[in-house]
Amino acid sequence: MPTDDFIVTPWHVEGEIDYDKLIKQFGTEKISKQLLQRIEKLTGESHFMLRRGIFFSHRDLGRILDDYEKGKKFFLYTGRGPSGHTHIGHLVPWVFAKWLQEKFDVNMYFQLTDDEKFYSKQNMTLEETRLFANENALDFIVLGFKPENTKIIIDTKNIKTLYPIAAQVAKKINFSNTKAVFGFTNETNAGMIFYTALQSAPCFLEDKPVLIPLGVDQDPHFRITRDVAPKIGKIKPALIHNIMIPSLEGPRGKMSASEETTTIYTTDSPEVVKKKVNKYAFSGGQPDIEEHRKKGGNPDIDVSYQYLRIFFEPDDAKLKKIYDDYKSGKMLSGELKAILIEKINQFLKVHQEKREKARDKLDKYLLED
Amino acid sequence: MPTDDFIVTPWHVEGEIDYDKLIKQFGTEKISKQLLQRIEKLTGESHFMLRRGIFFSHRDLGRILDDYEKGKKFFLYTGRGPSGHTHIGHLVPWVFAKWLQEKFDVNMYFQLTDDEKFYSKQNMTLEETRLFANENALDFIVLGFKPENTKIIIDTKNIKTLYPIAAQVAKKINFSNTKAVFGFTNETNAGMIFYTALQSAPCFLEDKPVLIPLGVDQDPHFRITRDVAPKIGKIKPALIHNIMIPSLEGPRGKMSASEETTTIYTTDSPEVVKKKVNKYAFSGGQPDIEEHRKKGGNPDIDVSYQYLRIFFEPDDAKLKKIYDDYKSGKMLSGELKAILIEKINQFLKVHQEKREKARDKLDKYLLED
Repeated sequence: MPTDDFIVTPWHVEGEIDYDKLIKQFGTEKISKQLLQRIEKLTGESHFMLRRGIFFSHRDLGRILDDYEKGKKFFLYTGRGPSGHTHIGHLVPWVFAKWLQEKFDVNMYFQLTDDEKFYSKQNMTLEETRLFANENALDFIVLGFKPENTKIIIDTKNIKTLYPIAAQVAKKINFSNTKAVFGFTNETNAGMIFYTALQSAPCFLEDKPVLIPLGVDQDPHFRITRDVAPKIGKIKPALIHNIMIPSLEGPRGKMSASEETTTIYTTDSPEVVKKKVNKYAFSGGQPDIEEHRKKGGNPDIDVSYQYLRIFFEPDDAKLKKIYDDYKSGKMLSGELKAILIEKINQFLKVHQEKREKARDKLDKYLLED
Repeated sequence: MPTDDFIVTPWHVEGEIDYDKLIKQFGTEKISKQLLQRIEKLTGESHFMLRRGIFFSHRDLGRILDDYEKGKKFFLYTGRGPSGHTHIGHLVPWVFAKWLQEKFDVNMYFQLTDDEKFYSKQNMTLEETRLFANENALDFIVLGFKPENTKIIIDTKNIKTLYPIAAQVAKKINFSNTKAVFGFTNETNAGMIFYTALQSAPCFLEDKPVLIPLGVDQDPHFRITRDVAPKIGKIKPALIHNIMIPSLEGPRGKMSASEETTTIYTTDSPEVVKKKVNKYAFSGGQPDIEEHRKKGGNPDIDVSYQYLRIFFEPDDAKLKKIYDDYKSGKMLSGELKAILIEKINQFLKVHQEKREKARDKLDKYLLED
């Protein structure tokens, strides 16, 4: 890691990530065209997050498909560290997970790691992280998950189910392992050292293979799980990784839930969204209109364009037109931002309505110990 | 520690322990005559384990008595690592705790650390340690504890109650702390590193000061708890320490539950007790009867005498007569062993009868989450 100019860990992402380099660094596999075609054949559909490389890397996805083709089903698992309100970047793997669930007709577990955020954030209490866990759960369930095949795990609430499984994992991990994988030091707290075992636990809730759609920054946890799995007689989890979603202020680093001005929350009002995008969204445009019309903008570094590509414009033809118009200088940065603001606010209007109605339904989704 | 010829840790006791040195090493306080008199005044009774120095050391016991005298009650907490059947050495702090509970009319929590023994014993499964937890609980409750004021905690069963408290502690402990206190290395497993936080948790179950009667080898855990307590707004636990109970084979090291031939279990039959004592109990006697009659025995190193002193002969006058007779050579080693065998078997007859009847009552003692 020190030789590259970017850092990706579960608690810290920094620099402009070279995803091909990251694949080598982490030892994962790029999602090949063949694998893409296989998924399309099985699901009868091409998902824009796959064909655009938002999900770009995997571990053992081929094995999951092999098994599935032989009639052996898997289950899905993803999660979220509830350190604040959900931001739109968090929705990326969840929306993709929903699609996977529908297409493959499988169970889904969603883990809210209130304990982890308590351990990793100096000033947060367990009460606060538990509160955000409940809030974040609302954002998850309104994406269309059904209580019949979707269970939400809150670490402190479901610890009775998780702990005996985590204990099997923890017995096979030593401090050196956590040092090597997470860069922990002698000053790292005991909660953090143990915690990775709790993030492993949901992988073994069912006696089936698991597939985990997740941000690539979470890969180190499951590198440990994959090392431990055979030692405790379990199947290694398979992973499918999405890229880091850039913060409003630019592509260096992922959107952070703790920085209000660089993050759009699912709870933001239309006015706040408008203000945040207009004020903070990093632009690929030229300094003035004249120059922009002449030289054109750079959509590849423009955050508004990237948000459309990653999440808000699934239609390839429409996206291409925006790309071309912006690149040619025909579309100005303000116009591009206006498109994004409109898209986000359309999405959030529906999302927020459903979100409030979901409060009463939440209990049906919570895992019973 | 390396300069002394003994080692005392929660997982390893070795060598002939110099308890005065250990007090200095651990930084505890010797139970003074004044403190003894204070306890006698409050309880109206002198307990043989106190006056004989079986309980010899403490932390903040004076503060507990100060508070008690002002009308502020404490609660009691002790425990056991269920790696096997209970042996008679385990009963020492439990019997003393029962006396404290009666005399001070306070609540008692008894923790069975099935997870710890799983983490620390390479070949034990959680199912095995959980099974022994249930067995050990029987030995505890038949000592006379009542379900109204006594609750048994089994770590994996009560993890929902324990974990959020343990998390507060774990956040304030780092790997360096566990290295310094327990001698952990980079190869120590993550379960062990976290575990001490779970042993701390019962200290904070009630919003009152806690007094912990325990073997002095467990002191390191609570040194950590005492460091952390003020950082999480809690009162430091007070401790009262008993000496290590020697194994049958001699005073070097504590009786270990894992060595069948050097340990008397509460489940042993009268024949097994007789055989074990006669065959393995380390003797302070002379090589032959003639020499013994002439030179006398050494009760201070004789394990049979020590067992009488520590647990089986509460009557000081009777104990003194045995001491004198053995020392003078009037009593032979075989006769001393016969006294101990008789005492153990009398005790175990009653204990084992109660123990089987207790199976149906166990549920009433188990802490509800």
